Amino acid sequence: MKNTYAIGIDIGGTNTVFGLVDHYGMIEYRGAISTKKFPVIEEYINELYNAIMPAIEQVGGIEHIRGIGIGAPNGNYYTGTIEYAPNLPWKDIVPIALLMSAKFQVPAALTNDANAAAVGEMMYGAAKGMKDFIMITLGTGVGSGIVANGQLIYGHDGNAGELGHTIIIPNGRLHAGTGARGSLETYCSATAVRQTAIEMLEQNVEEDSLLRNYSKEEIDSKLVYTCAVEGDKIANEVYRYTGEILGMALANFVMFSSPEAIILFGGLCKAGKMLLDPTKEHMEANLLPIFRNKVRLLFSELKEADAAILGASALVWELK
Amino acid sequence: MKNTYAIGIDIGGTNTVFGLVDHYGMIEYRGAISTKKFPVIEEYINELYNAIMPAIEQVGGIEHIRGIGIGAPNGNYYTGTIEYAPNLPWKDIVPIALLMSAKFQVPAALTNDANAAAVGEMMYGAAKGMKDFIMITLGTGVGSGIVANGQLIYGHDGNAGELGHTIIIPNGRLHAGTGARGSLETYCSATAVRQTAIEMLEQNVEEDSLLRNYSKEEIDSKLVYTCAVEGDKIANEVYRYTGEILGMALANFVMFSSPEAIILFGGLCKAGKMLLDPTKEHMEANLLPIFRNKVRLLFSELKEADAAILGASALVWELK
Repeated sequence: MKNTYAIGIDIGGTNTVFGLVDHYGMIEYRGAISTKKFPVIEEYINELYNAIMPAIEQVGGIEHIRGIGIGAPNGNYYTGTIEYAPNLPWKDIVPIALLMSAKFQVPAALTNDANAAAVGEMMYGAAKGMKDFIMITLGTGVGSGIVANGQLIYGHDGNAGELGHTIIIPNGRLHAGTGARGSLETYCSATAVRQTAIEMLEQNVEEDSLLRNYSKEEIDSKLVYTCAVEGDKIANEVYRYTGEILGMALANFVMFSSPEAIILFGGLCKAGKMLLDPTKEHMEANLLPIFRNKVRLLFSELKEADAAILGASALVWELK
Repeated sequence: MKNTYAIGIDIGGTNTVFGLVDHYGMIEYRGAISTKKFPVIEEYINELYNAIMPAIEQVGGIEHIRGIGIGAPNGNYYTGTIEYAPNLPWKDIVPIALLMSAKFQVPAALTNDANAAAVGEMMYGAAKGMKDFIMITLGTGVGSGIVANGQLIYGHDGNAGELGHTIIIPNGRLHAGTGARGSLETYCSATAVRQTAIEMLEQNVEEDSLLRNYSKEEIDSKLVYTCAVEGDKIANEVYRYTGEILGMALANFVMFSSPEAIILFGGLCKAGKMLLDPTKEHMEANLLPIFRNKVRLLFSELKEADAAILGASALVWELK
């Protein structure tokens, strides 16, 4: 059918963004609603429906919509349900694909938000044409999407690719959400950068730092970045340390699936070379020689919101 | 063609074993030659040819042979070459598939020995019917074969699945072969069990142990097993500790590819529950809740040599 679109939706803890996407990956209409304002799932879906319908009318009505693709934290591709997502307002298991399909009267498919970003990157971004790569999202948390043999790895239950929760430092930092110690997320997320900065300030009381001009509450990954750019020693050391742990973790991932590239995505990537250089150095140092100097470490080529919208929309074209 | 066979060959550091395998996975003829006695690859291939030809004649000649499948450490599926295998007598890169094909005048395919074992297990063993599982070989070293979406994961360069070299304890034990510190292989191989036993004996000089009746040189994983079965406290602690580290590593692997099962294979599996129980306990303890009590931890159902012969032979039926 001419002028057919997919609706791509990216559900985040704070906001939900959506777009109408054509077969070429062009996003025709964009929009957003609050996620956290709607703790009742039916009200959330009504709000989303009201926000998207005007865009659907613009393209000629629902008969021009092939389906809905959704990316969400803890989204399970096989069951179409969001399962126990700690950062979303809905608890337990939410049959979101079913609810959306019933509301819009078109097919709907769901996947994990990092998986959606990986698909977006594979179809329209830095991983175009690649059959083996890993996408790592470095935001409030650390997510991942793994592609091998040209396919997303879902695992037997749809939950594969939780690399942010792999243990990198045994008995290391406590993860408040999971209770685990030493997971990647506790060292390499935006939240972790804040914690590393606070720890380093406390451990080096003699050392002057621009960060000491701010209260503990004010310190976040953006502030650490700003101070690092201004040459602050502790702030630079925070990113170097973050890269050291990330590099060690990436080496393990490489020895698992031997990807052509690892694509980094999310807020922390704004640190650029300051994060990339130590990450690459420590990844290479921890690799078995047969893997060295082969894996490309890249930043995403897509705008942050777009990758997930595009990836989610790509699910639609695969719908039977 | 009726009565068609595949030759399955498993190249180990000490010996090479082979078998003629039919379409049903029945091994008709078995044989073995020394690997390490032939540092010149051409002489090794001549010896193998002379050992296999009588079996080929038994089934009616080379026209009944569909091809040769080879499993070898550091065997690369894409290139058909063995690359820098530390435990084999041939250095650098050996184009083994090409050499075998030229000698026998039938097609030949190569894969990593642990990948071959995984394919054998998937077609004829404990992983029959599974689409997502991980095979871990616990022998002199630690190898692995990973299956996801019903396919072996080879990675972009054919080297995927080197889980024995992933870093589990940062700055941990030195690996004499690779120079890396804290890799799984330095804690959970047969070699590692010996080292753990020696360390524990030295750290607990007050503690009585059956192992003290032997010289350091005599201690190996079999002796530790024998002493553990007889109730020796330190020997039991060695296996408990090995399981603790293995369990932690397996948890990370599960959060990568979410397999239906992990299949353990190789000499160390003789320890049975003594290894399995602590491994399972620590795997579960390190998993994110969504993965808990889902992954089956199994021992291989195939005889050690057979798994690799069968897996290697299976490569042949896929040859174009």
